[in-house]
Amino acid sequence: MNDIETIVNEIESVLRHLDTDHVNDIAASLLQAPRIFVVGEGRSGLMGRAFAMRLMHLGATSYVVGETITPAIQEHDVLVAISGSGKTEQVVRVSEKAKSVGAVVVAVSANALSNLAAVADRLLLIPAATKYQVAHELGSVQPLGSLFDQCVHVALDAICLRYAAATRENNGSAFARHSNME
Amino acid sequence: MNDIETIVNEIESVLRHLDTDHVNDIAASLLQAPRIFVVGEGRSGLMGRAFAMRLMHLGATSYVVGETITPAIQEHDVLVAISGSGKTEQVVRVSEKAKSVGAVVVAVSANALSNLAAVADRLLLIPAATKYQVAHELGSVQPLGSLFDQCVHVALDAICLRYAAATRENNGSAFARHSNME
Amino acid sequence: MNDIETIVNEIESVLRHLDTDHVNDIAASLLQAPRIFVVGEGRSGLMGRAFAMRLMHLGATSYVVGETITPAIQEHDVLVAISGSGKTEQVVRVSEKAKSVGAVVVAVSANALSNLAAVADRLLLIPAATKYQVAHELGSVQPLGSLFDQCVHVALDAICLRYAAATRENNGSAFARHSNME
Amino acid sequence: MNDIETIVNEIESVLRHLDTDHVNDIAASLLQAPRIFVVGEGRSGLMGRAFAMRLMHLGATSYVVGETITPAIQEHDVLVAISGSGKTEQVVRVSEKAKSVGAVVVAVSANALSNLAAVADRLLLIPAATKYQVAHELGSVQPLGSLFDQCVHVALDAICLRYAAATRENNGSAFARHSNME
Repeated sequence: MNDIETIVNEIESVLRHLDTDHVNDIAASLLQAPRIFVVGEGRSGLMGRAFAMRLMHLGATSYVVGETITPAIQEHDVLVAISGSGKTEQVVRVSEKAKSVGAVVVAVSANALSNLAAVADRLLLIPAATKYQVAHELGSVQPLGSLFDQCVHVALDAICLRYAAATRENNGSAFARHSNME
Repeated sequence: MNDIETIVNEIESVLRHLDTDHVNDIAASLLQAPRIFVVGEGRSGLMGRAFAMRLMHLGATSYVVGETITPAIQEHDVLVAISGSGKTEQVVRVSEKAKSVGAVVVAVSANALSNLAAVADRLLLIPAATKYQVAHELGSVQPLGSLFDQCVHVALDAICLRYAAATRENNGSAFARHSNME
Repeated sequence: MNDIETIVNEIESVLRHLDTDHVNDIAASLLQAPRIFVVGEGRSGLMGRAFAMRLMHLGATSYVVGETITPAIQEHDVLVAISGSGKTEQVVRVSEKAKSVGAVVVAVSANALSNLAAVADRLLLIPAATKYQVAHELGSVQPLGSLFDQCVHVALDAICLRYAAATRENNGSAFARHSNME
Repeated sequence: MNDIETIVNEIESVLRHLDTDHVNDIAASLLQAPRIFVVGEGRSGLMGRAFAMRLMHLGATSYVVGETITPAIQEHDVLVAISGSGKTEQVVRVSEKAKSVGAVVVAVSANALSNLAAVADRLLLIPAATKYQVAHELGSVQPLGSLFDQCVHVALDAICLRYAAATRENNGSAFARHSNME
């Protein structure tokens, strides 16, 4: 088995545990959100940005916490907060602030018992190895949280697929919103 | 004269040459824009981001080219394109693309004879030293384009001041839009 | 088959076509590089950033084109340039500039006949659907270039796995370099 | 007096209060730092990035907290932490973490009695209006913390000027480090 097969096998072994009802429920709550904010640090944050970008292509109003033109979050907005360990301080703190103004917090984490899971309204549990590589996570030969990042990427793109189906977006309508200045 | 006085004197000597009618005209075109996009590389780009952020606080719909959720630019949108030399390829290229879809291009540059100035609908000429430190620019003891960046910062904030006056925004309304997740 | 299974199947069907010798050769050239630069636009760029971050954790000196402290690229440095279509202008242009100063260009693309492939010293061909969804790409039910992004993510992490093996980095040494300010 | 004159006058009235010994002391501590990290949120953060970029041009090893390839901060590194109010939670928290590993914290703030000032080893006090527009700050007709941002910009560039003088950097050597991929 080469490295790529190893990684794909690891991804499959984690995603098999995903609750597809949770995936669908989260897609449903995003469809009702006036605006969707995404927060994450490190590689989790980059997967969050990829999600926010695709949601914009699909017609959503989305923002990345920390980028230039991100406004104040408000009641009924949804915050998607990504942290493998569920204890990244900046992510937990932003989630608490969002919660305090009445926003809905969707956590994406490997840890159902974390501070992030505690503050969240909904949890998408992705039981993959994080950089702490602790017992409740499925193991990985990969360094740090690579497996978690890969599984987050696929899981969030599954949410996009469902979102696109519900809004009847197709490749053409998404293409029209895609940046035309690259 | 200490370093700070030297820098402030340099800034003043450049800004004295600014055409305040141009500043006001640009503010007026931004007030009519459905959406405002900003592009720049390096420190010019950072000044552009600061401008886009403040415009958002003041109620505008603004975007930074290259950030995550920036959509396609369309007819009637305004692109503010910043390049001291007026020849930064990425900035010129983005301006040409914006122009080709019918957007209005406002150039901010030290060089009235540049490619950027040529493609632009409006030019805010800021004759400060850039990193090329060429003849038509006012000299500076500072390295690279620091003086240009400083003057762009003040000039764009003068546009914000005028924009805020026209929209009757005050500190309270701007504060309400400011990110509440820091 | 639920959405997640669909996506994982699509990923597998593309990655089956990857040339593992190419993956290993690219890892080898990165191991010899004094510095590694990464460039990409949109979601491809985000995957590139995730790669640059992990390479830093693994002890490499890596930079993202367009970020704040990225210096001039020089002879012998490696540029990893990602573009599904191989025709993203900014990516092609940066690759040409890197090439002109004697840097090594590694292209990651779905298109072996593109401008990007033409300028590159090495090509990692990932024949997945891009946002143009053209004939030489494997099809996808997903919007735009999602499948390409997913496959790039896994392929670049396979390179990381090989890089880590060669440098004998482990989770502990990588963790020590990971940002301690989140 | 037009808007630009108004802004320049405000900047001058604040910078007159700056302690030039502090400016010089901070330049001296940066000259001794193995690595310089910069943190700030919003427009303060953008001014921090402009500073980190110029320091790189001048030969320093600098990083922006939150960017892709920023490594762990270590003993003796310097963190420049910018917050007008001195109470931006993310900035205070990062400063505390940096301090806990033995890094030197330089605060740039309008508030000498803030949490940020308390954790800092050195303080560059810039008594300009912030977005809270409170009593110990000099007033401004500008919205939010624009005056603070402008004064931070000039003050940090004065530090750059001193840094360049000490390292005998000139425009040519700085230009050679400037990104050649724009």
